[in-house]
Amino acid sequence: MSSFYKRITALRERLSVVEPDTAWIIVPENRRYLSGYSAKDSMLTESSGCLLINKDNCLLVTDSRYTVQAKNEAADFDIRTINQNMVEGLGKIITLMGTKNLGFEEQYLTWKLYHEISDVLSKSFEPVCLSPLNCIVEDMRKIKDEQEIHAIEVSAAMISKVMDAVIEDLEPGMSEKDISWKIQGMIHDSGADGLAFPPIVASGPNSALPHAVPTDRRIKTHEPVVIDIGLEHKGYCSDITRTVFLQDATPELKKIYSTVRQAQLRAIEGIKPGMSTDTADALARDVIEDAGYGKFFRHALGHGVGLAVHERPRIAVTKPVTIKEGMVFTVEPGIYIPDLGGVRLEEMVLVNADGVRILTSAGHFYDF
Amino acid sequence: MSSFYKRITALRERLSVVEPDTAWIIVPENRRYLSGYSAKDSMLTESSGCLLINKDNCLLVTDSRYTVQAKNEAADFDIRTINQNMVEGLGKIITLMGTKNLGFEEQYLTWKLYHEISDVLSKSFEPVCLSPLNCIVEDMRKIKDEQEIHAIEVSAAMISKVMDAVIEDLEPGMSEKDISWKIQGMIHDSGADGLAFPPIVASGPNSALPHAVPTDRRIKTHEPVVIDIGLEHKGYCSDITRTVFLQDATPELKKIYSTVRQAQLRAIEGIKPGMSTDTADALARDVIEDAGYGKFFRHALGHGVGLAVHERPRIAVTKPVTIKEGMVFTVEPGIYIPDLGGVRLEEMVLVNADGVRILTSAGHFYDF
Repeated sequence: MSSFYKRITALRERLSVVEPDTAWIIVPENRRYLSGYSAKDSMLTESSGCLLINKDNCLLVTDSRYTVQAKNEAADFDIRTINQNMVEGLGKIITLMGTKNLGFEEQYLTWKLYHEISDVLSKSFEPVCLSPLNCIVEDMRKIKDEQEIHAIEVSAAMISKVMDAVIEDLEPGMSEKDISWKIQGMIHDSGADGLAFPPIVASGPNSALPHAVPTDRRIKTHEPVVIDIGLEHKGYCSDITRTVFLQDATPELKKIYSTVRQAQLRAIEGIKPGMSTDTADALARDVIEDAGYGKFFRHALGHGVGLAVHERPRIAVTKPVTIKEGMVFTVEPGIYIPDLGGVRLEEMVLVNADGVRILTSAGHFYDF
Repeated sequence: MSSFYKRITALRERLSVVEPDTAWIIVPENRRYLSGYSAKDSMLTESSGCLLINKDNCLLVTDSRYTVQAKNEAADFDIRTINQNMVEGLGKIITLMGTKNLGFEEQYLTWKLYHEISDVLSKSFEPVCLSPLNCIVEDMRKIKDEQEIHAIEVSAAMISKVMDAVIEDLEPGMSEKDISWKIQGMIHDSGADGLAFPPIVASGPNSALPHAVPTDRRIKTHEPVVIDIGLEHKGYCSDITRTVFLQDATPELKKIYSTVRQAQLRAIEGIKPGMSTDTADALARDVIEDAGYGKFFRHALGHGVGLAVHERPRIAVTKPVTIKEGMVFTVEPGIYIPDLGGVRLEEMVLVNADGVRILTSAGHFYDF
């Protein structure tokens, strides 16, 4: 039984207890998770297809640009090609499947497409109603199976090697953009499918921006350089951050670095299955607050990583969930002081029976 | 008066004749068009901000990750930062603006966010209703102003140089992926902001797929290699395609190539302002149909190019619109024969008072 078939079966079990009888899957990562079909959407308004799954059928509906790829990749699915009037064609298929209640992905479906499909379905002989799927596939994706864990391990090992090599090569005078470009070359050479996200290289005051975009600024000695990178391997993402100093840091930056590292280690040692994500977040946040930097740690402790680089669970104070064996997420505390600079350290971890195992393996350089 | 202010004024004039009194702008290209704010959305669910424009106010609402950038880039806008509960914060601002009817971008807004904002607004003291904006900003963007035309000309010149250099370097045995990576390096070295889209390099039978993704396949002599690339310069995209043969093509491929080139030239010579887009499409399509390849030209003749690589107008048979001076679009006929291969040739053109001017300038190599 293919791992896709197992996932389809699990989805069908969930569908049997919620309202919709048919799941209409348009989120690219959910499509890939359930079918193996790896096409992305080039633009929001240019879908490369969707899945329709009910108790009897597994259909993949796409247009002729993608038929060959769909047939090659989605062996458990019946591939249907529609070249004109996609919405009407979809409506027909949905009606023929005997759908009474179509579950849609409310976090991805646009208002416009919702109304178009809803119009078409309201005209069908047997009316079909629509209900949000409430992220049931995203919830399934929280717990990784063996095959997924293996792909993520490889992805994390690959990006760790890239990180070590990047840091080895850093020289004062290189621009953030140069370094980012070098990283992209290394990721390409590593044999990855591609980037998981555009590299973040943020130096000096720019390092105080958690989501900095690389600039022409040239890196200098004594200042922090935050490098946050990720790649995709067989669809699975990795995500790692290191902060380095080309020469000795100032005493304040040393204190900040050491606080972030201690916060990270405290979380990695303390997180156990059964713990709530807000408790996990607090393990690190308390260390940073005790050091007086609480208000400079403004984001969540981490996020799930899998087919998407940001997915469930979110390791944060708000909307807590229970941590379970098989989850993969980042542990990435940071302290960002406007104008001075910032430090972030990020590892990926896998939750096992006793705690967590670190998946990223790039070196740590300071013991301030 | 900044070109942004002129655009805001034009939007306000349009708002004065449609239902919504306030435009809520979330499409990244529309944000940039109206404000200069260049941040993209890293994920659909991770917006980097929105504009709120009514007759009295121009607000840019974002979170603290983007405040500095917003202030630097959007001089005509009042920047507001919301760090928690974005939807509630937005609701408050919208109410304080005196909005009665909020225009939203129905082609980008998700069903979920629509319902969240609608819930918040329904609880406000003075109820606010919501109406789709019907792409009024996209419609404005169809006609380029002087500043936009200049940026597009530079973008088109840059990508043309890259195309000439790529073709110069092609050798049998290079893989599609290698060539794609080389192109990315050249685009990086050209000083562009980045890629407009991932390069398409499709050789042999792969060239029969209009949207092929580069594979490990190595290019060979005598077969078509379709190269379709674009870059971004100051936010403005370029888009160009050439089809090359490393050595002489077979007679059939020569006939196909020459048919596509004739179809392209016929369209470029024939398109005039005032013409309907379906007539423009037919100029090229008729040439291909007369040569017996009609059913192998399965896509539209072209698409608008600007802040987005695919934007209005679409040069196609369906939903015709009138071609006007100041429009920029592609002219890209193609013939794709399954298993054999395909040929596509693409130029960008600017509509002027008499016809069109070609903006892309890479060489054409065959005169079959």
